[in-house]
Amino acid sequence: MSDNPNDQTATPLLDKVRLPSDLKGLSDPELKTLATELRAETISAVSQTGGHLGAGLGVVELTVALHAVFDAPRDKIVWDVGHQCYPHKILTGRRDRIRTLRTKGGLSGFTKRSESPYDPFGAGHSSTSISAATGFTMGRELGAETGDAIAVIGDGAMSGGMAFEAMNHAGHLGKRMFVVLNDNEMSIAPPVGALSSYLTRLYSEAPLQDLKSAAKGAVGLLPVPFQQGARRAKEMLKGIAMGGTLFEELGFSYVGPVDGHDLDQLLPLLRTLKARATGPVLIHAVTKKGKGYGPAENRPDGGHATAKFDLSTGEQKKSPSNAPSYTKVFAESLIKEAAKDEKIVGITAAMPDGTGLKQFAGVYPRRCFDVGIAEQHAVTFSAGLAASGMKPFCAIYSTFLQRGYDQIVHDVAIQRLPVRFAIDRAGLVGADGATHAGSFDVGFMSSLPGMVVMAAADEAELVHMVATAAAYDDGPIAFRYPRGEGMGVDMPEEGVPLEIGKGRMIAEGARVAILSYGTRLAEVLKAREALQARGLAPTVADARFVKPLDTDLIDRLVAGHEALICIEEGAIGGFGSHVAQYLSEQGVFDHGFKFRSMVLPDTFIDHASPEDMYHSAGMDAPQIEAKVLELLGVAVAKRA
Amino acid sequence: MSDNPNDQTATPLLDKVRLPSDLKGLSDPELKTLATELRAETISAVSQTGGHLGAGLGVVELTVALHAVFDAPRDKIVWDVGHQCYPHKILTGRRDRIRTLRTKGGLSGFTKRSESPYDPFGAGHSSTSISAATGFTMGRELGAETGDAIAVIGDGAMSGGMAFEAMNHAGHLGKRMFVVLNDNEMSIAPPVGALSSYLTRLYSEAPLQDLKSAAKGAVGLLPVPFQQGARRAKEMLKGIAMGGTLFEELGFSYVGPVDGHDLDQLLPLLRTLKARATGPVLIHAVTKKGKGYGPAENRPDGGHATAKFDLSTGEQKKSPSNAPSYTKVFAESLIKEAAKDEKIVGITAAMPDGTGLKQFAGVYPRRCFDVGIAEQHAVTFSAGLAASGMKPFCAIYSTFLQRGYDQIVHDVAIQRLPVRFAIDRAGLVGADGATHAGSFDVGFMSSLPGMVVMAAADEAELVHMVATAAAYDDGPIAFRYPRGEGMGVDMPEEGVPLEIGKGRMIAEGARVAILSYGTRLAEVLKAREALQARGLAPTVADARFVKPLDTDLIDRLVAGHEALICIEEGAIGGFGSHVAQYLSEQGVFDHGFKFRSMVLPDTFIDHASPEDMYHSAGMDAPQIEAKVLELLGVAVAKRA
Repeated sequence: MSDNPNDQTATPLLDKVRLPSDLKGLSDPELKTLATELRAETISAVSQTGGHLGAGLGVVELTVALHAVFDAPRDKIVWDVGHQCYPHKILTGRRDRIRTLRTKGGLSGFTKRSESPYDPFGAGHSSTSISAATGFTMGRELGAETGDAIAVIGDGAMSGGMAFEAMNHAGHLGKRMFVVLNDNEMSIAPPVGALSSYLTRLYSEAPLQDLKSAAKGAVGLLPVPFQQGARRAKEMLKGIAMGGTLFEELGFSYVGPVDGHDLDQLLPLLRTLKARATGPVLIHAVTKKGKGYGPAENRPDGGHATAKFDLSTGEQKKSPSNAPSYTKVFAESLIKEAAKDEKIVGITAAMPDGTGLKQFAGVYPRRCFDVGIAEQHAVTFSAGLAASGMKPFCAIYSTFLQRGYDQIVHDVAIQRLPVRFAIDRAGLVGADGATHAGSFDVGFMSSLPGMVVMAAADEAELVHMVATAAAYDDGPIAFRYPRGEGMGVDMPEEGVPLEIGKGRMIAEGARVAILSYGTRLAEVLKAREALQARGLAPTVADARFVKPLDTDLIDRLVAGHEALICIEEGAIGGFGSHVAQYLSEQGVFDHGFKFRSMVLPDTFIDHASPEDMYHSAGMDAPQIEAKVLELLGVAVAKRA
Repeated sequence: MSDNPNDQTATPLLDKVRLPSDLKGLSDPELKTLATELRAETISAVSQTGGHLGAGLGVVELTVALHAVFDAPRDKIVWDVGHQCYPHKILTGRRDRIRTLRTKGGLSGFTKRSESPYDPFGAGHSSTSISAATGFTMGRELGAETGDAIAVIGDGAMSGGMAFEAMNHAGHLGKRMFVVLNDNEMSIAPPVGALSSYLTRLYSEAPLQDLKSAAKGAVGLLPVPFQQGARRAKEMLKGIAMGGTLFEELGFSYVGPVDGHDLDQLLPLLRTLKARATGPVLIHAVTKKGKGYGPAENRPDGGHATAKFDLSTGEQKKSPSNAPSYTKVFAESLIKEAAKDEKIVGITAAMPDGTGLKQFAGVYPRRCFDVGIAEQHAVTFSAGLAASGMKPFCAIYSTFLQRGYDQIVHDVAIQRLPVRFAIDRAGLVGADGATHAGSFDVGFMSSLPGMVVMAAADEAELVHMVATAAAYDDGPIAFRYPRGEGMGVDMPEEGVPLEIGKGRMIAEGARVAILSYGTRLAEVLKAREALQARGLAPTVADARFVKPLDTDLIDRLVAGHEALICIEEGAIGGFGSHVAQYLSEQGVFDHGFKFRSMVLPDTFIDHASPEDMYHSAGMDAPQIEAKVLELLGVAVAKRA
């Protein structure tokens, strides 16, 4: 199939499958063989592309079973989060492009409607699938041309509030739909929350309960072999009798737990449910993240996300780092501040590794809270901690902080509670693409009265901003920083609180001033270098704060220059808008002053390298240089 | 106590209570009398002020019991939503101002930290209390000077996803805290969702279950009378045996159901729990909204919110309407569109009355979905409906839409699904104050790529915008309109779809152009009239769209005038920012052009009449007039 020398496993059955309809002719033993080949192909592909490996390996059998039994694309299989969809993509006409995963112009690492009719609902963020499936279901009830909706959702995602909202609604509606709870015993991080303990109880050893109570459950829906006295039936009934009540109380029939890697269980179960289910059914499948690939299975996160790797050893091929990551700098800075102030606590929402709070928890376990996939709660829990006198650092990626937006407005900003928001993954993020871009936080944070809002220009600035947030206790404060490595600048011994609302001058120049907010500063300085060669070096300043705005600095830039360019890694409505509002109110435009605001364009930018994405956004050094030249009226040759 | 003739009930015991500490000396029979007086005082006060009556009457006994047993303000009583807090305010030093409720300078209609130390966490939006209480609890565990945290949350609020997130986390933490589930059998609207049915089962008649299983529950925590064979104990144990498992599975001890109006149950129960609880406890109290006031009890919504009323008859004193409310116009327009297109469906999140969807459901019951307090789900459910080919109108107040922001970005905008957002209560809302202001939607909607975003200038425009949204199927579209009555303009027979991205000229004038977005248009026209008297009539246009922006219209305004003023009922980052970005990119400022953007100020504006609030915001007709005169360099006397 592939001419890559790494791709050594023969996949004769998989080679014949182009679309899910090709599965209909296969026998159950052939489907098992297909699953084995699909697993090998998934591992091989990810070894070449990097990406989310563990999740896909955990659902190989589920993917085969769902496509063998249901009829996509008429039936709507909605993969929650979507990062487990690589086997699904291989089976749905995208095998020929599977080695382009997460690269520019290649397949998305998530499900994506525009990519295939077999992706009826795209994802990237968690806990959305049941809501979407409920929508498809009610569409069908009202006459839309659509079949069954099947949401496949992990145990971590099930802890997100919107999954509960959707279960509550779907259970109330009572219409036929399916939720496959893919209980993989670990999401990105060790599972958090009482729901997780509950699920563990459901599949852990326990004395068999009174089987009469099983009659309440979905037993009538079970395939005959499961209703008989076999070991497997007992295990299922145990689940029904013991528990599952949480889901039954929400109006779902509960079936399980079943072994999500055993096609002998999955296939008859799904066939019977497809034939006989009349209302909402939850199928509790227990799976293992990273299943079938030793190096992934043995990692604590089940090989959640990986770089390209060597197939035989599992060793990841990472390029050497030049500088510490912003995440690491944040974590180390927070640990230092926490040593000085015992009121400092850290909060994250299922991102302990990604935010660096795992490192913080290693030093201060009692002072660190991972609340699970629950951003709304994370923010208001932080607000409660602040109201009790603690100093919470709530560390959430920009894109996921959108989930807690109302809580930021209502529970934090209106009450002026000193919650510190550490906003990681701000700006464009690369391979994860549009769903994970941190494009909107500058706007949605800086429009809030009383919020102090900063962006770090480099990793040394981040150290100082952590110190600033630790010292500031008059209200909420936020600081953003990008995914990835820092600039390699000299690091301070210790963070020093910045003066609130004060930027800094970086380089004096003439005619044009560039006021940068965030890490575009490096590109701005590159552009300055190129312009200097033409004798047109602009002044460069780092705003540090969008709120409060450093109006003194802006006044100076206006007074000494004929033009001001603002630049930020965010959408319209953020830093540039605040500067424009100030300038217009001051009457700066009334008698002529050149002003430009470089913001992210009005499109969702597809996955590519961050460099490519910023080029698409018109925000790299040559593009900044061109902007300056244009303002100065210097003719330049058009660039590609 | 009061010199108001309406206030006829003598309240001798209540007259002696200034603070909760005064309750400590009262006997249980005295506490019962106090509750009776507190109820009478609450009814009397609301008859004079209007406001949320039913919710407060439902928790009179709970309020007395909590304050009698716990020690506020050291113990943190967190009232979810906060609209049930009037009795609490009366008992916590605010009785002398209770008749200023919801008026300018008076008490807030919700809990508010800045108002009293007895309001440890403010509210307004629902489902936040358990998160906040968990924050207080963990603050205490880490040494903060705070006692017990008690969240009091309604059954409707419990269906909000963040309440589930918080239960899941608090159950996992396992620390002593209390959640009082105030199950009042109806929130604003008839209860929605499987959780609600579950709660009903918990307290409805059912055969007594095996009492042995009660040992699993919180029975060890119960006061002795409850552990004995009395009827009440049986009822409680029934609850424990039958159900409560949903909460127990989330790590809470479940106690209940108890009669939330029976102090003989509440007082010993709370005392025992206070003395003996070691982990998280959920107390399931069944109450009646509007309890003790016939006219409220008998209304389907339990007297949720009321105007001032006559104490003896319950008749509300509403001022006569001059024009239909925007809500009503929306509902009627949607019904008309739905008659022409069977794909149109309506979705709301526990706001069927407030959004007018109740009226829609009256005509099209199968095509209307009230998902409960679950904005995240509402948005993604709508996205699922759109993906199935339906035409969903998702009607949510601006302030509550903040809850679904990530879903708007991730599930709707990125996928370009044609969900129609009907954004009611946009702009400042009056008596509900800052927590309910719809200040941010223009910014957070218009920064999203591919979103069409409109605002209605009057109720006739709203009719056309509903038609526009019904006709537009290329992606998401949103339209906002304010709370309250329309302008009284002539109404069209039928809505006509507007050209996407095109505004309209309202009145030609000279020198200054005002481009209005939304219902400030009426004030703008008043200002124009005043200016006309001075011979300075400005041009006035209605933008209709912030996205796509009508750049032709803007170009014309720029070309023919020396200044442009934008005005919108929203915070910075919205309409004015989009216009500024366009003008700066076009180089309009380079050679001098006067531009101003009138937006909401950078403060949270306290409750008052909408007129007062807009005056505070600097956005009424005289203030608009002043802005024009200032731009024209006409000296005017300073106004107050």
